[in-house]
Amino acid sequence: MSPHTRHAHSPGRYIVGVDLGGTNVVVGAATESGDRQYALRSELTRADQGADAVVERIGRMIDTVVAQTMAETGAKRADFLGVGIGSPGPLDRAKGLVIMTPNLGWRDFPLRDRVSAQVNLPATLDNDANCATYGEWWQGAARGGRDVIGVTIGTGIGGGLILGGKLFHGASDVAGEIGHTTIDSTGRRCKCGNYGCLEAYASGPAIAERAREALAGDEASVLTERVNGDLGKITARLVYDAAKDGDFLARLVVRDTARFLGTGLANLLNIFNPDTIVLAGGVTAAGEALFQPLQAELRRRAFKPAVDACRIVPGTLGDAAGVLGAIATFKAQTMGAV
Amino acid sequence: MSPHTRHAHSPGRYIVGVDLGGTNVVVGAATESGDRQYALRSELTRADQGADAVVERIGRMIDTVVAQTMAETGAKRADFLGVGIGSPGPLDRAKGLVIMTPNLGWRDFPLRDRVSAQVNLPATLDNDANCATYGEWWQGAARGGRDVIGVTIGTGIGGGLILGGKLFHGASDVAGEIGHTTIDSTGRRCKCGNYGCLEAYASGPAIAERAREALAGDEASVLTERVNGDLGKITARLVYDAAKDGDFLARLVVRDTARFLGTGLANLLNIFNPDTIVLAGGVTAAGEALFQPLQAELRRRAFKPAVDACRIVPGTLGDAAGVLGAIATFKAQTMGAV
Repeated sequence: MSPHTRHAHSPGRYIVGVDLGGTNVVVGAATESGDRQYALRSELTRADQGADAVVERIGRMIDTVVAQTMAETGAKRADFLGVGIGSPGPLDRAKGLVIMTPNLGWRDFPLRDRVSAQVNLPATLDNDANCATYGEWWQGAARGGRDVIGVTIGTGIGGGLILGGKLFHGASDVAGEIGHTTIDSTGRRCKCGNYGCLEAYASGPAIAERAREALAGDEASVLTERVNGDLGKITARLVYDAAKDGDFLARLVVRDTARFLGTGLANLLNIFNPDTIVLAGGVTAAGEALFQPLQAELRRRAFKPAVDACRIVPGTLGDAAGVLGAIATFKAQTMGAV
Repeated sequence: MSPHTRHAHSPGRYIVGVDLGGTNVVVGAATESGDRQYALRSELTRADQGADAVVERIGRMIDTVVAQTMAETGAKRADFLGVGIGSPGPLDRAKGLVIMTPNLGWRDFPLRDRVSAQVNLPATLDNDANCATYGEWWQGAARGGRDVIGVTIGTGIGGGLILGGKLFHGASDVAGEIGHTTIDSTGRRCKCGNYGCLEAYASGPAIAERAREALAGDEASVLTERVNGDLGKITARLVYDAAKDGDFLARLVVRDTARFLGTGLANLLNIFNPDTIVLAGGVTAAGEALFQPLQAELRRRAFKPAVDACRIVPGTLGDAAGVLGAIATFKAQTMGAV
């Protein structure tokens, strides 16, 4: 090391991760090993401005993250290996295409190559829910697992599978669509057009909707006061908070959510026999009011050796999970392993 | 080759496969490569006589199969590498134990080592539904697949998973229990104690039961005559036959079976995105009356890229599937690959 460098140049290489969502884009960097993370930034996606504007925004965010990481570490631009991108799907990984994304309104959009050209770095593309699962496995709550299922519950329910220590994509990159598994074949209508999907019961909006339905039945609940009688303002978060405050109706809604989720996860236990399920997203804020009846439903519906073999953990990385997972998929796709 | 040998001694080595079921034991042999099969034999299991008697019966069957294969091929006893055993589970493969099998009444029974000692050959143990899937992949209808799901429909519904060209076992060897995935969380009671399992709708006995329920409603059907009014005699096979003869009620029962199966398989498509699903067991006898509405239900419930990527095929090996799969698992467990 020459004596005139003020910032010690950390030996090592860096990768940038992009987690593209319908609402927000999150970008950050990490060392190749993932143990040090830098410059996590979040901006609104604003897909309404068109794909070109989104690509430019992602490019600017990457440039900022690279510059900030260089400033913090003394790294040089040449130390950045590339960019891993996580995007809603379905995708074609080999071609780097987003085949279709209702939230962004894209069809067959060459996101990987557009971002790569924008920042002049190699890039890879993978599914956002895969990335979130991979991130928690690489650096978070699912670390050490071999057969891991990740379930992220938000506006929708996304899933990712790690089997034998590798992200599993299936025959055409759509594996892991756990939100659209049927738990009640004649049940609630799902946004996807089918009936009885897990997502139609346990996503954030579905939780709010079930609470509204219960309240419309004239049952007493603090929820009615908290939205000043405007049931359209009920959110899943309000339901969790009211449940924590002991509100009976809200507790029922959370308990039912746990049962629906438990039914979907029991199916995964009986099919996969995973060692770890990592749950992420707003619903984990419900805490034990959710996890206790969820475990009970698993014991009710899944085989004992499968229940015994599996730990259910909340994710610990928050917004960084998708970014770190995108970084890990860049590593896996370009170097064969993390 | 010396001129005095009458039977040419096929160069190569042989493996014996055992498919142990609650009703029958099937045993056969094959060359190491699986391309030539010998001496398939089936006998009643007679688990009521106790585990020792079953082990002795399996041992005698193996000895007969070995002798017959030697006679047919000119092979020597030393050319037999060992025995692969497929058994109902749950199992502990590493220890070679059958942990519990309601149909046989066993608990923690060291089946692998007992059979091995009986015939003085190395042995391996795997789940019967895994073996049936593996057999169809190795030598049958699922050949060439990479991510394959096998579903065997009989008294129960068993499943096996081949992911990335390898049999997938999960964290404690219970992966693949497709029959006990929930398709209707408040639905029919299953033998396993839960509600709404696929098996409670689409197994052979469940198909017969749904037909009986329909007939009890006074609907006209040739089925009533064919059992002389004794509805207890309705079987799934009678339902398929009546459906083929155009009986409306029987056709409805088969159509509903296809819808239930389609719901369960759509879940697997959305989770795994396999390239092949191989269906085996009596239900495939229903032919297009089953497969056509099954495909329709898949298109209704599964993502298009997942439906497009997957062929659904009936098994072609029949009884030999489990035996060949057991042979293949012996190879995989002792040599690392087939």
